[in-house]
Amino acid sequence: MAQYNVAPLEKLVEQFERMPGIGHKSAQRLAYYVLNLSQPQARELADAVIEAHTKIRYCSRCCNLTDRELCPVCANPARDHELICVVETPRDAAAVENTREYKGVYHVLHGSISPLNGVGPDDLTIKQLLSRIGSAEAREVIMATNPTVEGDATALYISKLLKPMGVKVTRLAYGIPVGGDLEYADEYTLAKALEGRNEI
Amino acid sequence: MAQYNVAPLEKLVEQFERMPGIGHKSAQRLAYYVLNLSQPQARELADAVIEAHTKIRYCSRCCNLTDRELCPVCANPARDHELICVVETPRDAAAVENTREYKGVYHVLHGSISPLNGVGPDDLTIKQLLSRIGSAEAREVIMATNPTVEGDATALYISKLLKPMGVKVTRLAYGIPVGGDLEYADEYTLAKALEGRNEI
Repeated sequence: MAQYNVAPLEKLVEQFERMPGIGHKSAQRLAYYVLNLSQPQARELADAVIEAHTKIRYCSRCCNLTDRELCPVCANPARDHELICVVETPRDAAAVENTREYKGVYHVLHGSISPLNGVGPDDLTIKQLLSRIGSAEAREVIMATNPTVEGDATALYISKLLKPMGVKVTRLAYGIPVGGDLEYADEYTLAKALEGRNEI
Repeated sequence: MAQYNVAPLEKLVEQFERMPGIGHKSAQRLAYYVLNLSQPQARELADAVIEAHTKIRYCSRCCNLTDRELCPVCANPARDHELICVVETPRDAAAVENTREYKGVYHVLHGSISPLNGVGPDDLTIKQLLSRIGSAEAREVIMATNPTVEGDATALYISKLLKPMGVKVTRLAYGIPVGGDLEYADEYTLAKALEGRNEI
């Protein structure tokens, strides 16, 4: 593989290979893309990496990503600050936000309880959630963790801590996805959809 | 989309979105990956981008990518320097190199003649190829451009320039891919495979 004796190129391919969902071929393609950039464009890319890394921090209230003290959602007085949606990651918060239906605020856990991966409750932002609810009014907390074993366990764990504080805790509804096909729904999802059926 | 009011994150997502084969969702995933890097890791990534960009240049002989005056293949006296394989891109050269069957050297065109995209012969390294063959012994030139309209046209164009110089010019064989299925081979490939059949 004499082609790869070009050390700086190899190094760049390696960097891309470490990224999620990027295999060796894609990493190569991305590295060649970088080589074909103009000098200012390459500088821009490198700066974006460094800047994102140094400027972005956690919102002091909801732990979502922001470049200010408070994230735009927490800083917005028009949002319902007594309704808190608890999600695992900033991307999950973005997904809920994209529905354009949700007017409350968020709390980002940055993971889920997963003993197998060595992630315990103390590794998440649960403490911040408790102190937040202790210090301000909260009407309802929606547990919007993933519909997985870890997400469910995390939701249950947090709800047990919140209930004694007199907060209403809800969980996202399980059911068949909109536009899905009953035939292809897995049995667990279908069972949950039956169980949670609503009168029409 | 209040989540995306985080300017540095948006900027990084944009950077990744410009890369080939990276859509919006993947770009977001990559941006979050970068955010989760440690400070030195992020620095390493940014440095790799800049370094690849500043250190890598074209081999003065074959125009392949290298960080020295001559690429490792051209600098290797054990290679057959009278056998030149002409390819469109450095990645094509890498693909031929990976067969471990080829002992000659390369010439990288950095594209193919494509009037529709505004790429003419002068935009490729054809001049370098001609002066190279004019100044040193060359026994055979293998046209290993892509099996596309542009690749074929480029191969034909170059062969017409080389033949008056008394060089043998060959083209990669067309045919069915090894491990492929006749049933799924397209008719052009199959026709080419029939045309180029060999006695066994």
